[in-house]
Amino acid sequence: MAVYTDISEVELAEFLKDYDIGELLSYKGIAEGVENSNFLVHAASGAYILTLYEKRVNPNDLPFFLGLMQHLSDKGIRCPLPVKQRSGAMIGELAGRPGALVTFLEGMWMRRPTVEHCRELGAGLAAMHLAGADFPMRRRNGLTVDAWRPLWNRAAERADEVEPGLGAEVEADLADLEAHWPKGLPVGVIHADLFPDNVFFLGKRLSGLIDFYFACTDILAYDVATCLNAWCFEKDNSFNLTKAMALLNAYTAIRPLSSAEAEALPLLARGSALRFMLTRLYDWLNTPEGSLVVKKDPLEYLRKMRFHRSIKSADEYGLKL
Amino acid sequence: MAVYTDISEVELAEFLKDYDIGELLSYKGIAEGVENSNFLVHAASGAYILTLYEKRVNPNDLPFFLGLMQHLSDKGIRCPLPVKQRSGAMIGELAGRPGALVTFLEGMWMRRPTVEHCRELGAGLAAMHLAGADFPMRRRNGLTVDAWRPLWNRAAERADEVEPGLGAEVEADLADLEAHWPKGLPVGVIHADLFPDNVFFLGKRLSGLIDFYFACTDILAYDVATCLNAWCFEKDNSFNLTKAMALLNAYTAIRPLSSAEAEALPLLARGSALRFMLTRLYDWLNTPEGSLVVKKDPLEYLRKMRFHRSIKSADEYGLKL
Repeated sequence: MAVYTDISEVELAEFLKDYDIGELLSYKGIAEGVENSNFLVHAASGAYILTLYEKRVNPNDLPFFLGLMQHLSDKGIRCPLPVKQRSGAMIGELAGRPGALVTFLEGMWMRRPTVEHCRELGAGLAAMHLAGADFPMRRRNGLTVDAWRPLWNRAAERADEVEPGLGAEVEADLADLEAHWPKGLPVGVIHADLFPDNVFFLGKRLSGLIDFYFACTDILAYDVATCLNAWCFEKDNSFNLTKAMALLNAYTAIRPLSSAEAEALPLLARGSALRFMLTRLYDWLNTPEGSLVVKKDPLEYLRKMRFHRSIKSADEYGLKL
Repeated sequence: MAVYTDISEVELAEFLKDYDIGELLSYKGIAEGVENSNFLVHAASGAYILTLYEKRVNPNDLPFFLGLMQHLSDKGIRCPLPVKQRSGAMIGELAGRPGALVTFLEGMWMRRPTVEHCRELGAGLAAMHLAGADFPMRRRNGLTVDAWRPLWNRAAERADEVEPGLGAEVEADLADLEAHWPKGLPVGVIHADLFPDNVFFLGKRLSGLIDFYFACTDILAYDVATCLNAWCFEKDNSFNLTKAMALLNAYTAIRPLSSAEAEALPLLARGSALRFMLTRLYDWLNTPEGSLVVKKDPLEYLRKMRFHRSIKSADEYGLKL
């Protein structure tokens, strides 16, 4: 949940003067997204999302994120389409922050995804990877293996407050992942944060992908690994093999995984789990009481790290090559 | 800001089965309202607000609130219109809470209302009072003069923490208001919470009134007094006489105030300021750190109480009888 910045109707009207969307009818701060402030805007021409980029987003990255949404949308991937100002610009300023307007996507995210939703996700992810293949911009992943130790160094000292022994366990895993992180696997545009709240459905059909603000150029199979973590574990941290099979085999039906990618999958899944454990741990230790942000439990991802350590090969996830 | 209760697409779809609003397309928790959880719902037939009533709302009051909206809407007052279930019921249940669906009103609330907005408000308030005259249900005001002392008793001991001397000052004011609260003034349906965030505009025109969850049967002029407090003071607590003139004279052009009502206005305004000071004070002292609710400053209303104490008659507010 977030609306960090409120805006007045006067400043919004001023901002919208540069756009051809017709009369402004209403705007509501919405309780989605944790990094930015989002407003659902109704105008005479339709519904839009206005995003104000808060301090965690580097403004220099916005052309990549918005350009990617435009590119994917042009290729038939359903995602928010940036609305251009009359000048052609996609980024404006509002309340002292960079702001962008994108089309509103109908659809709902699944609080309790089913096997069918995981199958749709696998197919949608593969289609996104293919559509991104000729996107000309690049952005390095700021939260991949080389970023984990600096992050860990800022949390390690207090890790055992969260769970006794956490420090030593993470240290060993991190060293192992740094030593063995795969090289030479196919790279391309990845979403990097494709959790259920970023995937919309209408009925059983995937209706769109949103929130590309972690998107970057990185190992494609790493995106698959992140989805395994985010979609295929139940609330009790048990791994749902049926969901994983659905996700992986729908993916490979559209973009086959090479044997090298398949072989790397357990390590990538372990790394992805560590990445989310680390950012959650850091937020857990550093979010002040009284903040509007709901803190997510780092231990959920510790459990996932442990699960992936027990996996010897990707066929244990249900992958059929 | 509030979304206290999140709901899943599954429970929402189940809830909506009783309504004829067409396919559910999306729903977003919105950051408006402080008492309930509100969702902006898009369906094939249009946009709606779904409200889940949290613990501060007594479910027995819902037929009054929803019936009033229906009544006012039928009389041409623009306000949310409750959507009936196929059975005719206006109240359902969702996530273990009473829930209701109302039509979505386009429009924006004014973070910085102008004189023109105050004029529109005055006229809109008077029209609402007239339209409510034949509403058959009654509800007592749970936050009028007889409720203030019990509320004060739960905050008095710690009042001086907020401002030294506050205890004695409120005690004196409260005793005076209890002794002199007017009797025999015209009563009817009042909104009782018509702050700027409950009044929508499109351009300079009032486009609707929302949030009738404090509405009750009480002194009509008390509603006018509350609007004076909520709309005619600037951020620095100075009283804007031009705004008050616009508000009062637009009101009386549609519903004239009797001389008894005019005479009572300074006392009613002082009482209304005390009422909001008391609830804010109580919340200030009792809202836990870390709550998602933004606490409002009780001292803003202390300043207003002091201002009204200095007023001898309603013509000092700019009222022309």
